[in-house]
Amino acid sequence: MIPMEELQKLVKTTPSKIVMLVMDGLGGIEHPDIGQTELEAAQTPNLDNLAKDSICGLSHPISPGITPGSGPAHLALFGYDPIKTTIGRGVLESLGIDFDLHKSDVAARANFCTIDENGLITDRRAGRIPTDQSSKLCEMLGQIEMDGAELHVVPVSEHRFVVVLRGEGLSADLEDTDPQSEGLAPLEVKATSQKAAKTAALFNQFANKAKLLLAGSHPANMMLLRGFSQMPDIPGFSELYKLKSAAIACYPMYLGLSKVVGMQTIKCANVQQEFDTLASVYNDYDFFYVHIKKTDSHGEDGAFGTKVEEIEKIDSLLPQLTALDPDVIVVTGDHSTPAQLKGHSWHPIPLMIYSKWCRKDTVHEFSESSCASGALGNLPAVDIMPLAMANALKLNKYGA
Amino acid sequence: MIPMEELQKLVKTTPSKIVMLVMDGLGGIEHPDIGQTELEAAQTPNLDNLAKDSICGLSHPISPGITPGSGPAHLALFGYDPIKTTIGRGVLESLGIDFDLHKSDVAARANFCTIDENGLITDRRAGRIPTDQSSKLCEMLGQIEMDGAELHVVPVSEHRFVVVLRGEGLSADLEDTDPQSEGLAPLEVKATSQKAAKTAALFNQFANKAKLLLAGSHPANMMLLRGFSQMPDIPGFSELYKLKSAAIACYPMYLGLSKVVGMQTIKCANVQQEFDTLASVYNDYDFFYVHIKKTDSHGEDGAFGTKVEEIEKIDSLLPQLTALDPDVIVVTGDHSTPAQLKGHSWHPIPLMIYSKWCRKDTVHEFSESSCASGALGNLPAVDIMPLAMANALKLNKYGA
Repeated sequence: MIPMEELQKLVKTTPSKIVMLVMDGLGGIEHPDIGQTELEAAQTPNLDNLAKDSICGLSHPISPGITPGSGPAHLALFGYDPIKTTIGRGVLESLGIDFDLHKSDVAARANFCTIDENGLITDRRAGRIPTDQSSKLCEMLGQIEMDGAELHVVPVSEHRFVVVLRGEGLSADLEDTDPQSEGLAPLEVKATSQKAAKTAALFNQFANKAKLLLAGSHPANMMLLRGFSQMPDIPGFSELYKLKSAAIACYPMYLGLSKVVGMQTIKCANVQQEFDTLASVYNDYDFFYVHIKKTDSHGEDGAFGTKVEEIEKIDSLLPQLTALDPDVIVVTGDHSTPAQLKGHSWHPIPLMIYSKWCRKDTVHEFSESSCASGALGNLPAVDIMPLAMANALKLNKYGA
Repeated sequence: MIPMEELQKLVKTTPSKIVMLVMDGLGGIEHPDIGQTELEAAQTPNLDNLAKDSICGLSHPISPGITPGSGPAHLALFGYDPIKTTIGRGVLESLGIDFDLHKSDVAARANFCTIDENGLITDRRAGRIPTDQSSKLCEMLGQIEMDGAELHVVPVSEHRFVVVLRGEGLSADLEDTDPQSEGLAPLEVKATSQKAAKTAALFNQFANKAKLLLAGSHPANMMLLRGFSQMPDIPGFSELYKLKSAAIACYPMYLGLSKVVGMQTIKCANVQQEFDTLASVYNDYDFFYVHIKKTDSHGEDGAFGTKVEEIEKIDSLLPQLTALDPDVIVVTGDHSTPAQLKGHSWHPIPLMIYSKWCRKDTVHEFSESSCASGALGNLPAVDIMPLAMANALKLNKYGA
């Protein structure tokens, strides 16, 4: 990959438009009975037609053999080095519940837990108390008065919630209070750098007050904090690519990840609405990230057949997208989620980049096996954005 | 490649087993008369069958165009960055003669040489004196009493031998005594860092005593030291991959290289014994490195036909390996040694990775030309171990 600061210097503004269609967990492996992957088994005449006019390949989000989470996988798709740029658990969890995280906030992933009369943890998940119960406790904790910071305590589900401090000069260089095993007492928040001393004191103040408030709420009579983090300090899409960008998705997590890179976010209820939205806002932006969730969900469930159906549904909607005649269309996934493995996997992801200038290859079908012989070869996902920008004629020459 | 410290965090222990079969110098180039490489000319029904169920590609040990020595080639195969991690000549030579080098030892490659009455070198190789003669001189030098370190002087062959110092607080930050040209005097050992001052003094003490002892042994009346080195400070296989690993090989050099990464080593007399050994110790380990030497030796000799025969012999033994039903089988070489070039070369090496989850490609034959169209494409050799670990389901997800 070209260093981001070098790429940034090459960017020019043009009226061309880029659509990036991301089918989450798109890649699969062959079903043992039919010898085909989900994408290969699906009838996808529209994707196949687009592949004929595209350059194809397989992309790996991080590095061969590495299975990515959604955070690093999307950072790579958006062109950010997923090893250098990390998104902490606290931030990711906040994004996942659609919490409006500010750049300087420090977020922690929190668990209600049970402690005994000696203050030792007997259950790190407080018996997985129901969400309505933990929501009430979060509301109570949210009333805690903090000296020098604004506090947000937001329920996620069951015993899980998020604690966010907002204020001046906060730092996430902090160690977890979760000792990661039962029979031990919750730890103090410790600063790992000088600049985090104040933030550590604030979180400890919160933890102490929370302990008193929760004393009567057995089994949720204490809480643990981990994954202290701030939004990564990276240039957004407008700064890096000079793009006016929109994210169209149904799930908060992906809208959240798009917010990290400064996209405008548009929440939809279903895929039909996503494609309709793309058309309706098409004149207002020059980059569109369209996220399809269910390909991944069905893969996670091991549901080969419904993953095939979801791919076919997207294929049937594709003409709505191509009718807009974008200058560049990227179709890929953030990672593979083979139904056979019921989870994310390391397998590289089918990728096509369509443009008038793409130098199309011989791939006539959008599938893992066809893309393996595509002219893009095996490509790190971080190279997709520079290629999309190049195909949109938005990059100047490097050097003279 | 993913940084080693990041990879290390992802590793989990499972009962799955990995076998890595390395045919040294496997890759070739086409014989001008038949238009086929050694591997293409060989009848390899078993390798071809395995390739049908594998994902294939071509691996380059260091970087395209770079011909590797055995040290860096194996480091890359084992998943260590071969540019950042180096194995010095002293260490490599010690490993090659099966010397039991300890982590803190400092080893030097040594030459007997001839000096004139003015102390100037007239022959840097002492007329390539026969090994039995240099062995006696080594025994004599080994008697030198050192203040503060244990001395080992071990013959290699002809004028070449190894000098090892064992003790506390030694460092290899030392400059060679070999001035690299005749007509000059042997240099003093100079420390290039403060912490190596004591070690420099010890080697100078050794060199001065050796000069006196060798005075009457013309043409071997002096010796030169170079390639001062210590075992590289890298995490071993158990630490990095949580693997209980065994190296099965016939040649000390490869057992030595395996020891550098903490493998248990098992020395065999021939390839049949190597495959028998694999079966007999199969329950005791979860990673097996099996090294085949003669493919390289025949390549170095320019013996196209006998290299073909050696490949066919390994192919005939392959069913013994596959009968064990390992979860992952990697078949490749450490580098190419085309008979046409009579030496190591830069050509990438055929590679196949078999597992139930590999997402097999369309390659139906294990050869350079077929692997060139494999779904792994051209792959840095350092990525092979992460892929093997992924296929063995031994890696957790990176990021959330």
